[in-house]
Amino acid sequence: MKKRAFPITILLISCISFTLASDAFAGDPNGNHTYSDSIQGLKFSVNFAWTLISAFLVFNMQAGFSFLGAGFVQKKNTLNYLAMSFVDFCVGALVFWLVGFAIMFGGSKIAPGLSSGNQFIGYSGFLLLGDAYDVSTSVLWMFQIMFAATACTIVTGAVAERFKFHAHVFYSVFLCSILYPVFGHWMWGKGWLEMLPIGAGARDFAGSGVVHGMGGLLAFIAAWVVGPRFGKYNPDGSPNVIHGHNLLYIVIGTLTLIFGWFGFNAGCTLAVTDLRVSVIAVNTFLAAASGAITLLYVSYYKPKKSDVIMICNGALAGCVAITASGAYVPHWAAIVIGMIASLITRYSLYFIENKLKIDDPVGAISVHGANGLWGLLSVGIFSDGTYGGVHGLITGSGWQLLAQFIACVTLIAWCFSVGFAFFYTFKRLFGLRVPVNVERTGLDVYEHGTSCYPGS
Amino acid sequence: MKKRAFPITILLISCISFTLASDAFAGDPNGNHTYSDSIQGLKFSVNFAWTLISAFLVFNMQAGFSFLGAGFVQKKNTLNYLAMSFVDFCVGALVFWLVGFAIMFGGSKIAPGLSSGNQFIGYSGFLLLGDAYDVSTSVLWMFQIMFAATACTIVTGAVAERFKFHAHVFYSVFLCSILYPVFGHWMWGKGWLEMLPIGAGARDFAGSGVVHGMGGLLAFIAAWVVGPRFGKYNPDGSPNVIHGHNLLYIVIGTLTLIFGWFGFNAGCTLAVTDLRVSVIAVNTFLAAASGAITLLYVSYYKPKKSDVIMICNGALAGCVAITASGAYVPHWAAIVIGMIASLITRYSLYFIENKLKIDDPVGAISVHGANGLWGLLSVGIFSDGTYGGVHGLITGSGWQLLAQFIACVTLIAWCFSVGFAFFYTFKRLFGLRVPVNVERTGLDVYEHGTSCYPGS
Amino acid sequence: MKKRAFPITILLISCISFTLASDAFAGDPNGNHTYSDSIQGLKFSVNFAWTLISAFLVFNMQAGFSFLGAGFVQKKNTLNYLAMSFVDFCVGALVFWLVGFAIMFGGSKIAPGLSSGNQFIGYSGFLLLGDAYDVSTSVLWMFQIMFAATACTIVTGAVAERFKFHAHVFYSVFLCSILYPVFGHWMWGKGWLEMLPIGAGARDFAGSGVVHGMGGLLAFIAAWVVGPRFGKYNPDGSPNVIHGHNLLYIVIGTLTLIFGWFGFNAGCTLAVTDLRVSVIAVNTFLAAASGAITLLYVSYYKPKKSDVIMICNGALAGCVAITASGAYVPHWAAIVIGMIASLITRYSLYFIENKLKIDDPVGAISVHGANGLWGLLSVGIFSDGTYGGVHGLITGSGWQLLAQFIACVTLIAWCFSVGFAFFYTFKRLFGLRVPVNVERTGLDVYEHGTSCYPGS
Repeated sequence: MKKRAFPITILLISCISFTLASDAFAGDPNGNHTYSDSIQGLKFSVNFAWTLISAFLVFNMQAGFSFLGAGFVQKKNTLNYLAMSFVDFCVGALVFWLVGFAIMFGGSKIAPGLSSGNQFIGYSGFLLLGDAYDVSTSVLWMFQIMFAATACTIVTGAVAERFKFHAHVFYSVFLCSILYPVFGHWMWGKGWLEMLPIGAGARDFAGSGVVHGMGGLLAFIAAWVVGPRFGKYNPDGSPNVIHGHNLLYIVIGTLTLIFGWFGFNAGCTLAVTDLRVSVIAVNTFLAAASGAITLLYVSYYKPKKSDVIMICNGALAGCVAITASGAYVPHWAAIVIGMIASLITRYSLYFIENKLKIDDPVGAISVHGANGLWGLLSVGIFSDGTYGGVHGLITGSGWQLLAQFIACVTLIAWCFSVGFAFFYTFKRLFGLRVPVNVERTGLDVYEHGTSCYPGS
Repeated sequence: MKKRAFPITILLISCISFTLASDAFAGDPNGNHTYSDSIQGLKFSVNFAWTLISAFLVFNMQAGFSFLGAGFVQKKNTLNYLAMSFVDFCVGALVFWLVGFAIMFGGSKIAPGLSSGNQFIGYSGFLLLGDAYDVSTSVLWMFQIMFAATACTIVTGAVAERFKFHAHVFYSVFLCSILYPVFGHWMWGKGWLEMLPIGAGARDFAGSGVVHGMGGLLAFIAAWVVGPRFGKYNPDGSPNVIHGHNLLYIVIGTLTLIFGWFGFNAGCTLAVTDLRVSVIAVNTFLAAASGAITLLYVSYYKPKKSDVIMICNGALAGCVAITASGAYVPHWAAIVIGMIASLITRYSLYFIENKLKIDDPVGAISVHGANGLWGLLSVGIFSDGTYGGVHGLITGSGWQLLAQFIACVTLIAWCFSVGFAFFYTFKRLFGLRVPVNVERTGLDVYEHGTSCYPGS
Repeated sequence: MKKRAFPITILLISCISFTLASDAFAGDPNGNHTYSDSIQGLKFSVNFAWTLISAFLVFNMQAGFSFLGAGFVQKKNTLNYLAMSFVDFCVGALVFWLVGFAIMFGGSKIAPGLSSGNQFIGYSGFLLLGDAYDVSTSVLWMFQIMFAATACTIVTGAVAERFKFHAHVFYSVFLCSILYPVFGHWMWGKGWLEMLPIGAGARDFAGSGVVHGMGGLLAFIAAWVVGPRFGKYNPDGSPNVIHGHNLLYIVIGTLTLIFGWFGFNAGCTLAVTDLRVSVIAVNTFLAAASGAITLLYVSYYKPKKSDVIMICNGALAGCVAITASGAYVPHWAAIVIGMIASLITRYSLYFIENKLKIDDPVGAISVHGANGLWGLLSVGIFSDGTYGGVHGLITGSGWQLLAQFIACVTLIAWCFSVGFAFFYTFKRLFGLRVPVNVERTGLDVYEHGTSCYPGS
């Protein structure tokens, strides 16, 4: 456990950057060349404002995930969940600044300093130095780190209540430096999936696949490799319900996530000069609403209870699914997509807990993973051709659906090969799991030295 | 209780929409015709950004209402309150998309697809289909659904701790499809109140009357029809205090609501090219501050205690009152309006609890209802003529006050006739109230199958 | 204790303003003269949108402070902390409107109505009347009041659990009318520090010194004058740990603060036509991340625990320090600044608690005070000359560092002279502290008549 290495590495890298800072600035670090008192200049301003504020809203989803996950876990493990979901975005930011961003967007030429890269990997923009010290590149980085951080945090919930804190830190480093940026490059950095000569190329507007699908699939792998919580399954394989400790946090978390999701989806145009943003925002809201109401009534019948967790899961499932397709589909389709997403979630929750016997305390695999894939596919079905030249089945063309299907298969293959290799290797080398007696007494005191609610 | 009918209806309607989707798009669903690289094009962009971000902030008020209401109710009914206030905006979104929006803005011609309607009711824009599948119409819908959802949620608090969950769902359907859109049409959809040939016509800038007044008056009717909570009144008619369970939630809820209120009020220009937005934002903040401080000191004298609930009520009362008038009045008037609002709230709270003996656990009737009416009237008093041609008493003209008075009377008449008819009929047919033993043990377990805080 | 005087004063002033309202409006209260369909007009719109939305985000930091402080205090004093931090921004808004804003920005000519003032004090713009009744002045006021309110709230945490509620109200009046605006004028209102003929003049981009340094130094003085909590120090002078009651609130509070900080720092351009905003936002995030990770690992070694409070303190320390320098430094420097900030925080926390024996329940002195000064100095070290003509040590010039040092000394001298005089006088005349038995049983019931969690 070379824990000492980490801060030293950062220090070392900082020193190197210090030296590099003497570079001539070829980018535009103060915007004086980018902005001018003209239509073109104002376009930059208004799009900067839009993208940055959207990024801030996406950042606030971290508060949403904190509430949501804290509500789902037991009292004795609350602080551990909060610490993991806080630290992952901090580590993620540093790593994404160091290498992740360069791998993901190098070669995309979306902003200055991102010129080198091919269809499989990017390799320019490291440390936002040189040409990448530019106002346009910074705005892209700001928006994209929030997405990487989201993918990272999604896994946290699925491994809660038994994962080692420092294993989570290492996993965050790996995700934000390799796992996420490489697939992200394929999809968003002018990579081979985006450039696929089928339909309009694989399309994942705001990251159903890139962010939520990846987060959810890695959650699946991590939860599978680390194993279920002590006491989750009886000797006969039947699962026990382990109640969370605060459903108010779950509801507030869901609301906070939806709030951030508006920035997540509508902000993904990176430009409010693209007026489609309004359709995207409406689609996001409608999918959330229809997901919530569908799952409310679908889960109502048997116990005659209105299950609040299912209402929240339904809303989030709708949001996840519409993330890929929100820009391409008409409003009615957003409602249908949300309904189907909520049904998928319900079945997936049952299947994963009872059949696969994988223990996912917050339902991240079903909400983010299953619906991430469904979101990708929904682009191929419901796109009406009004935006981005994307035509789905409802316009009579099946090619887009094929492209989306290829993206799904690729995502699954990527996560299961590299993700599994990482978690399995880490488990063998260092162990992923706290000792069983710690799990019983709670991780908060063991990992963090205090309970979340001292004195109560 | 035809609960099965609901999801089937949605499915049915989705199928119909599916068919309708083959319509030629006469609107501009991707913004290519609306936007251009020009001053006019950028005006759309900057106003879209402003209105959408404001809508997101107003959405976040749902988190504020969740905190606020959850703090005011007893522990055993917390989850029920949260579920009701969550589901109402989901149901509201679907219903407002289906019919509400078309009734409210049809004929207003504010955006494409809203051409048909008269001064009493609108009838175009259903399902945002046809011409209404347009980026401008979507941005209007996005902003307006948040207002409808707010009106809906206001009632939730007043009927908390005894209302049936599914009665609340049905009420939300009715409010968002008929009750709210019709009055909203009169005031904001080029209806007869807005067009009143008195003063500048009745003016309700951001909805003191349309949103808060209606929510508060319906809260009055609903709380009255459903009756007080078990144990609220003694046999001699004197009220008991039933404490909420978490005052931190009340404070956080109030802060979150004020945060959203900036979008609620300043966003109501639907345009940041209207620079008056800054005056509106400042007025909102000053009214909240003066309301809070006034009620703090007014309620201080008797018990020599600084009542935190009163501080919060005062701030919210100021926000409600300034909602109608924030755009029309100078800054000093915002402070006076907030002060008066807080005094009205204090008296109204006493009057409703002790004289009318109506049980309102969160004070929604006084904060939103009474101040909604006061807000409408304040336009007629303090408008200084600098904006929208609205001249109040302080400029020496009484006509505007008359127009505002007519709006108040109309609002009261509309809510008390149609709102009462709805709640009374529903009570007779299906019942509004959970059984008394459920009320005693708490609604959470009965309606939702679990406590909000499992294991504690 | 002339408590009655306060509302009467407000009423009186309102009446005076009423009279003044008959003034001719020389400003532009509706924006009709400021805005036009042109590049210049749209610049106003987009910058208004940016600044107002940033102000809203900064307002939301009040929710962050409420969560943070509430988590750090004991259960029995939670409501008291919440009430103090709520009331201070309400009082602050009214006082800043009355006099503070005019003192701070009078003579700066940044917006209409701010023409009179000298390098030491401003004296125009009172009550936003006359020429200051203008859309541009309102937008400036809206942004600036949020900063004054933040400075005010920072002190609240350091004096929590023993300060009299009404002493806090009076202190808020004094801070927002005199203490804060005068120093603010020197730094931001074209005062002598800003105009210093050394380097580019003293520079405090978004208020490391003006807001956080002042708040933290006043927290120091207030905590020192009021004395430590009962039971904090043993007779031998060794400190006891008094646990907060909810670490989830601390984490959520930190996240909410960072969310608002993006508006705090990036909004301080007051213009998104200044594209440097993106670099500022990225720097803010990187400093927070590096602060958190550094303090996580620095505090890890001894107890082998990952201290969540330290993670949060580190993130906030990074934010405080980058507040002055975020606009001037490159990205790698933001990381270094955050790292150093977290080390300063750790040492300062130890030094203040163990050596100076000053009791600061939330760590405000170390997080805001010490890093406020460090932030000021960091401008003189790491500025790379790409923005605002500010050249730090890394470009080979030491003059800027001298200017920053002068600002630090001035800030300390100002706070310790005037701030100490205020708190000491108030203590002698009225007392700052609740009786010791109240402190033992908790301030909530004594000051506010109820516990924060009734019935538990």
